[in-house]
Amino acid sequence: MRLSTAILLICGAFCSTTAAQDLGDLTTVDKWKKVAHGVWSAELGEASGEVRYSDLAGAPPKIERLNRLKNIPLPGRIRKIGYHVNSDQKLMVRIPTSVGEKIFGYGLQFDGTQKNGKILTLKVDHFSKGGGATHAPVPFFISSQGYGVFFNTAKFLKVYNQVGNRKDSKTNPPEVDRNPPDDEPQSGRWMAQPPGDAIEAYVHGKGMELVVFTGTDLQDIVARYNLYCGGGAMPPLWGLGFWHRVPSKFSAAQTVQEINDFRKHDIPLDVIGLEPGWQTKSYPCTFEWQRKRFPDPGGFTKKLLDDGLHLNLWENPYISQHARIYEKMYPLSGSHLVWLGIVPDYTLQEARDILIEQHKQDHFDIGVSGYKIDEVDGYDHWLWPDHAVFPSGTSSESMRQTYGLLMQRMFYKELYHKHNLRTFGLVRASNGAASHYPFAIYSDSYGHDEYITGISSASLSGILWCPEIRSAGSDREWINRMHTVCFSPLAMLNAWASGTKPWSFPDSTGAVRNTIQLRMQLLPYLYTAFADYHQNGVPPVRSMLLETGRTNSRQVGREREINGENAPYADGDEPEIKEDNSLFMFGPDILVAPFYNRSVERQVQLPKGNWYDFYSGQLVGNHEEIKVTAQQTNDLPPLFVKEGSLIPMLKKPVNRTREIIGTDLEIRYYGKTDATCSLYEDDGETFGFEKGLYNLRKFSVEMQTDGTLRFSQTMIHEECRPMFGTATLKPMAR
Amino acid sequence: MRLSTAILLICGAFCSTTAAQDLGDLTTVDKWKKVAHGVWSAELGEASGEVRYSDLAGAPPKIERLNRLKNIPLPGRIRKIGYHVNSDQKLMVRIPTSVGEKIFGYGLQFDGTQKNGKILTLKVDHFSKGGGATHAPVPFFISSQGYGVFFNTAKFLKVYNQVGNRKDSKTNPPEVDRNPPDDEPQSGRWMAQPPGDAIEAYVHGKGMELVVFTGTDLQDIVARYNLYCGGGAMPPLWGLGFWHRVPSKFSAAQTVQEINDFRKHDIPLDVIGLEPGWQTKSYPCTFEWQRKRFPDPGGFTKKLLDDGLHLNLWENPYISQHARIYEKMYPLSGSHLVWLGIVPDYTLQEARDILIEQHKQDHFDIGVSGYKIDEVDGYDHWLWPDHAVFPSGTSSESMRQTYGLLMQRMFYKELYHKHNLRTFGLVRASNGAASHYPFAIYSDSYGHDEYITGISSASLSGILWCPEIRSAGSDREWINRMHTVCFSPLAMLNAWASGTKPWSFPDSTGAVRNTIQLRMQLLPYLYTAFADYHQNGVPPVRSMLLETGRTNSRQVGREREINGENAPYADGDEPEIKEDNSLFMFGPDILVAPFYNRSVERQVQLPKGNWYDFYSGQLVGNHEEIKVTAQQTNDLPPLFVKEGSLIPMLKKPVNRTREIIGTDLEIRYYGKTDATCSLYEDDGETFGFEKGLYNLRKFSVEMQTDGTLRFSQTMIHEECRPMFGTATLKPMAR
Repeated sequence: MRLSTAILLICGAFCSTTAAQDLGDLTTVDKWKKVAHGVWSAELGEASGEVRYSDLAGAPPKIERLNRLKNIPLPGRIRKIGYHVNSDQKLMVRIPTSVGEKIFGYGLQFDGTQKNGKILTLKVDHFSKGGGATHAPVPFFISSQGYGVFFNTAKFLKVYNQVGNRKDSKTNPPEVDRNPPDDEPQSGRWMAQPPGDAIEAYVHGKGMELVVFTGTDLQDIVARYNLYCGGGAMPPLWGLGFWHRVPSKFSAAQTVQEINDFRKHDIPLDVIGLEPGWQTKSYPCTFEWQRKRFPDPGGFTKKLLDDGLHLNLWENPYISQHARIYEKMYPLSGSHLVWLGIVPDYTLQEARDILIEQHKQDHFDIGVSGYKIDEVDGYDHWLWPDHAVFPSGTSSESMRQTYGLLMQRMFYKELYHKHNLRTFGLVRASNGAASHYPFAIYSDSYGHDEYITGISSASLSGILWCPEIRSAGSDREWINRMHTVCFSPLAMLNAWASGTKPWSFPDSTGAVRNTIQLRMQLLPYLYTAFADYHQNGVPPVRSMLLETGRTNSRQVGREREINGENAPYADGDEPEIKEDNSLFMFGPDILVAPFYNRSVERQVQLPKGNWYDFYSGQLVGNHEEIKVTAQQTNDLPPLFVKEGSLIPMLKKPVNRTREIIGTDLEIRYYGKTDATCSLYEDDGETFGFEKGLYNLRKFSVEMQTDGTLRFSQTMIHEECRPMFGTATLKPMAR
Repeated sequence: MRLSTAILLICGAFCSTTAAQDLGDLTTVDKWKKVAHGVWSAELGEASGEVRYSDLAGAPPKIERLNRLKNIPLPGRIRKIGYHVNSDQKLMVRIPTSVGEKIFGYGLQFDGTQKNGKILTLKVDHFSKGGGATHAPVPFFISSQGYGVFFNTAKFLKVYNQVGNRKDSKTNPPEVDRNPPDDEPQSGRWMAQPPGDAIEAYVHGKGMELVVFTGTDLQDIVARYNLYCGGGAMPPLWGLGFWHRVPSKFSAAQTVQEINDFRKHDIPLDVIGLEPGWQTKSYPCTFEWQRKRFPDPGGFTKKLLDDGLHLNLWENPYISQHARIYEKMYPLSGSHLVWLGIVPDYTLQEARDILIEQHKQDHFDIGVSGYKIDEVDGYDHWLWPDHAVFPSGTSSESMRQTYGLLMQRMFYKELYHKHNLRTFGLVRASNGAASHYPFAIYSDSYGHDEYITGISSASLSGILWCPEIRSAGSDREWINRMHTVCFSPLAMLNAWASGTKPWSFPDSTGAVRNTIQLRMQLLPYLYTAFADYHQNGVPPVRSMLLETGRTNSRQVGREREINGENAPYADGDEPEIKEDNSLFMFGPDILVAPFYNRSVERQVQLPKGNWYDFYSGQLVGNHEEIKVTAQQTNDLPPLFVKEGSLIPMLKKPVNRTREIIGTDLEIRYYGKTDATCSLYEDDGETFGFEKGLYNLRKFSVEMQTDGTLRFSQTMIHEECRPMFGTATLKPMAR
């Protein structure tokens, strides 16, 4: 029987299938709607009922700014995008890609910016290396082929980046036998993961909106995304100073003592952050002052403000039974608790009103300047379940993707913007269309390499990353981490658990002080970069990817220079686009090459163009690898400046940003060519700038035929009191 | 403005919500249908279109066997199960649990069997520690409260095991302030994860079927699950011998040489496994013989069979363009490729017919005895995407959950069972309702602790785990791993990549030989345990959880003893149910306490009752911790035997299972009390046993008043030629 030779009779009919044939033939997306120059949207499937990040974020696109940019036709490849709704209600969208095309982005991703060959489940969560789950899983990618795609749907999105081969594809790699006979050569390299020719992504749902961007280069594409999302965030000037968060159970007296110690050590300070214990109850929270620790919150806050300091309050959104607003909020909260606190449904105006009223009365009215919104990211064990139900009918999944976004919008729009006062805060989760909101993301993780990568990564997706410092294993690590912190969008020491101070590692205190003071001196330059973010969408601290092929600085306030052509990297003359997350740009002209962990030296692969040492002004190289040591930088971070740059800086460091007012500037000049830069000024704290109440000054250096420099400054836009004093040129060694 | 005292006017209407209130009020599941004694099913929502594991596995419940078991009413708590279909088409089911209730199961989980406080996404995948993704994510749990629940839906299932607190729950823990003032004591222990009072689970879908089991204890519950799934798998006798897989590119000649080397080293061997290179092409596969390596497959197979050996062929399901069946299968395959091979839709009869025809002709008819079905588990990068489409309309998700199951069913039913020949094989993914299929699961992971845990874990969910040995870092590890292998359901050395042999670590060869020979001697006992699995659903190798509260052995072929009461552990008199995955039962009476990694000693927490050393027969303890060393066991695995056990063994080891026929038995007797055991016999290779063609012999020992033993044997069921020779009692030292 085992060796039975009985032959199954096979009839011809066997060989043709009678099964229903639906192999996911795609519907081409053909109804692209032009939103503005270089921006198109299209709906796939039945998208009318889907929650969109852009609607939820609610910052209208800066159409007028976008339309000042080069008008580029819809890339032809976009017309090949197709979609399919599967039998189990998965909406799959397929975006064809080319061989060699590189894919970057998808929000805050500590494991790198390039995503070819990766499968990402974009879901708000603690960071999980490689899988896509992260604090800010922005469903937006940019391609080396000169376009970007934003999946504008507040759902978990699973994206296959050139992973997977369709059987009907014409461009699959050839089959290779993995185990050929010994006397037969392998027909090619067998690949465990044969590259696919598309990005395929799906959600559970019936439809979604896609928004496509193009531009003259990657920076231009990202800038247009940010303009589509309302333009970048504009923090108050004080928000760019140094932040310090005190331990959880610190009292008012302890906090004041800590502030005095900062002064004693001559360390700049602008913001004090209180952690959970300022409240009567926490985890879940009341948002009400714990009078045993803070007997006079108004007096305490006023004392800080009088000293030029701003107060930031920690909170997570989960409300205690002991909170004044608990009863009113209860019916407006979801089916499940987090840490036994109710979870308000902030898609409801009534819920927002309740929170904002209480926050205004208890915090805003006494001078609190902003919030740190914690634990809106998960992980699963510390959040409502995916099947929780909310009174507005918003799905748990959409709520999870957008809770951080909702809270940013609420605090920004309905508290601070409404009362014409800027804020800058922290939030532990964000997502698509968040560019406009002045909150930086932070994490519980602490890998220095990841924190440095985060700076580049965040800049590709309209978010700001705060690589906070908490502790260190040595003086050297303390210095190096402080470098990273001070050249990030939000410079903060978070001592909530560690109790550290900037001077906690005594041998490093000089270097730490110098680093923070350098940040303070650079505030005119950084503040101008933020104005560029706001007005033109260009991230103030950003990935080197966004510099590829550029030699000129972006100039704030001017119509942006358009040198490129359509799909600039598709014509064979493309620059090499290569990720290097160990470097990043701080503003338009300064390249930062941080020392990692405890290192005192590193290699730096300089991009094309001449680069100058920030401190000495010496030429260090052009498109070559150099070595830099901590001895050379005098324990300051390695900084390199582009050919022909002007860096507006304070002549002397200040201890509070308010001391900037009227302080004289030096305009450092690097290189050998003509140079210009802009300087932005406003009142530093209101939204007057939205009505044009700001100044733009232009500084120029022209090289004269006799080798001398001609320095000039002009006021391009003058609608406010000047922030700074006299500016003088400081040519650096040439 | 910052200190603005403007007060928001709050109207009364503000405080009451007008929002739609749907907080997920649950629909109680009230239509429970009794399937058999202790088994009920109910449909939740619209379940008619959902793919069910039980339908797909297709082994009908053993109703008659179930109805011989104690008739227990539906536990009251089951009537409190409710469900809700959310706005985004998530079907959530809530199963209330008690404080202190323990939850075990969910398939093959290397990180332990108890799942309280865990969130599991049950998805077929490589094993990912802790998250639920695994080779066999069976959606079945058992509770210390005396019931089990099977989520009978072939979808990704996300289960929150007492994680999450509903705001309307009456049994939430009290709030505790995490940061009380220093002068106030904390009102209790603040918990990062306050325990929930239910299991909540969801799928994307409109409905599902639940199947509930109860029983007199955990073993009884698991047994009923297995009976519901058709009864446990019954391998051929040869399948329980020793397996060896040769390297990928081995030829027929090399394989024969390897077999000769086994004989030279006097190492038992029953099955030879060929890895991918036996085919003309692999990754993707042709399933056709590579004639350069195997010029005469029929002759090769016959040579093996003549030598008492069975041949197992590796394959993965992804079909090469070079395969004979490619053209016919193409239209019956899914939208995406895996390793550039097409992925047949085996829910279609036509597709199965094509494969089975080819396999019968090329393999079965020349004597191939079974398959190793590789890479049906993922991970994502090595599988079709979740949004792939299949011609039958089966969703990609259901296909992923069931592909391993489909292939087991196909090979078992449509090839081997159809031709009345048993098979035993390997598969890298399985799922719900798989109990009936004679395939063991294996993994690419290799942690010895995980492999040991896998033995206990698998036994709770109707699956068999093969903790294969591949290599080791030392002689001692080689020995210890061989112990684990030889006391598992399928004992295999997998040398596909390592090229190891049992004698690869020369100093260990004696111990390895002794271990394998001991397994061979124990085959009468193990084969009988498998018969118990088949007939009564009791796992042959199993978790200590299934022994809790038991002192008697399960007796195959007899109506099972019912000593318990309804919900046996709910009455306060419950035994302590505690996981200890470092121990497991091999058959009804032998406790295995493997040495881990390179250890030569360990502690053993003996359960209640007297336990005896297997080798010496000495009493070693009763409900106490003892130490055992490799010196004591003479490098054999630590084995302990229950009070009053009879172990039927071969008098001498054999090199092939076929040599068992007619070999005399010794019935080892342990302890001081009366004892009985059963011995099962059949023809070892056909399905005659399904028609009653088997023998059951009962052995008894009665302690006489004078202290002598009275040994007797009776034939309970006699319908086949005896397998074994004469049985004599061997009383071990008392």
